[in-house]
Amino acid sequence: ELAAHAASVFKTRRLDGIQLTITAGPTREAIDPVRYISNHSSGKMGYALASAAADAGAIVTLISGPTNLACPERVTRIDVTSAQDMLEAATSTLDHCQLFIGCAAVADYRPAIAADQKIKKDNDTMHIELVRNPDIVSTVANHAKRPITIGFAAETQDLLRYARGKLERKNLDLIIANDVSNTDIGFNSSENAVTAIWQEGQHTIPQMSKSQLAAQLINLIAEKFFAAKS
Amino acid sequence: ELAAHAASVFKTRRLDGIQLTITAGPTREAIDPVRYISNHSSGKMGYALASAAADAGAIVTLISGPTNLACPERVTRIDVTSAQDMLEAATSTLDHCQLFIGCAAVADYRPAIAADQKIKKDNDTMHIELVRNPDIVSTVANHAKRPITIGFAAETQDLLRYARGKLERKNLDLIIANDVSNTDIGFNSSENAVTAIWQEGQHTIPQMSKSQLAAQLINLIAEKFFAAKS
Repeated sequence: ELAAHAASVFKTRRLDGIQLTITAGPTREAIDPVRYISNHSSGKMGYALASAAADAGAIVTLISGPTNLACPERVTRIDVTSAQDMLEAATSTLDHCQLFIGCAAVADYRPAIAADQKIKKDNDTMHIELVRNPDIVSTVANHAKRPITIGFAAETQDLLRYARGKLERKNLDLIIANDVSNTDIGFNSSENAVTAIWQEGQHTIPQMSKSQLAAQLINLIAEKFFAAKS
Repeated sequence: ELAAHAASVFKTRRLDGIQLTITAGPTREAIDPVRYISNHSSGKMGYALASAAADAGAIVTLISGPTNLACPERVTRIDVTSAQDMLEAATSTLDHCQLFIGCAAVADYRPAIAADQKIKKDNDTMHIELVRNPDIVSTVANHAKRPITIGFAAETQDLLRYARGKLERKNLDLIIANDVSNTDIGFNSSENAVTAIWQEGQHTIPQMSKSQLAAQLINLIAEKFFAAKS
């Protein structure tokens, strides 16, 4: 019985001592001091993953965009605002990071110019020129000190096809595909359902609470992590 | 002593039975199902005003953009997302509204077209064409069933000049000017400092907690309200 107990403890400490970086929440890209562009994201999924990974024994650094969530226990949080800030924080962890989960809803584009002062609304129309933001998860996955790298794909159509395309294009080890057109799940919801996709297969996790889902995902991620390392 | 107590209770019930509508928080203007444009606003100032007004006996309808705040006690909340939603909710209260406080950080512009599906990032740059949003507080102040109308001005420069300009141009009874270039106050801070400006004068309230400030502002607003009515 003691052995069984030890095995179950061992099983729940699947990421014991593993250095994990996880990004969560949205980023905000300044138009001027009062206006910004952002993405819908409560941060709940990323925070749930950070919490589940810490439960599994990982040493977790959570790089978080603006959310209203409390930092999970035994997790070190770095607060950032823009995608560029987030990239800097992420690459700063790569010296020791063994596993990277990019769960943040990073803004793909930022205003080409962020105005120092509030732009006055003199006109009936306004044009904003946007430039591409760095792709954080892809930068990490193609870095010289590349950790095992997991991404997320939030899509509103052709979910699995787009997600598999991103897995290849971004050089990821695993991608978690999330259908955000379904308003029952994702974004501000406390539940989610996802399909985890890797080179040779995929696994669908049905709708459940984000904390339950996070625990299942961390198990799957631990499996892929040790398979890649062996 | 009883008379003094009654007077003090009376003093704190300055808006007894007055129908008050207050807008609070940011609005979000959809670019597509995952991306939006917004303004920095925690909603704290508007919620503090709603709470102070309810304490003063007002019958408060709080029209709120996305925030993470709990609805104050004895306040009826209507949740909205975009400026157009907020305008509709605001005008729907004008049949009975006697006092209107526009505290929301309404997005001045919205994307000319909100895409049904997530826009794919095929290009290095992207242009967003924006069109002007309705000016909610100005629409209310110029309505046939015009209540006493209070606005807010969040500025990063020439605060009092811009604010006084808005008081005139928008036909407001009072405007509360807020220097948002000072990071100690405003936005996500729990403290604020403002200058209330009306046709014949102005009054500065120094930095203090948003709830204390809200109580002082409600006293001032009640004074202006009954002066305008008499």
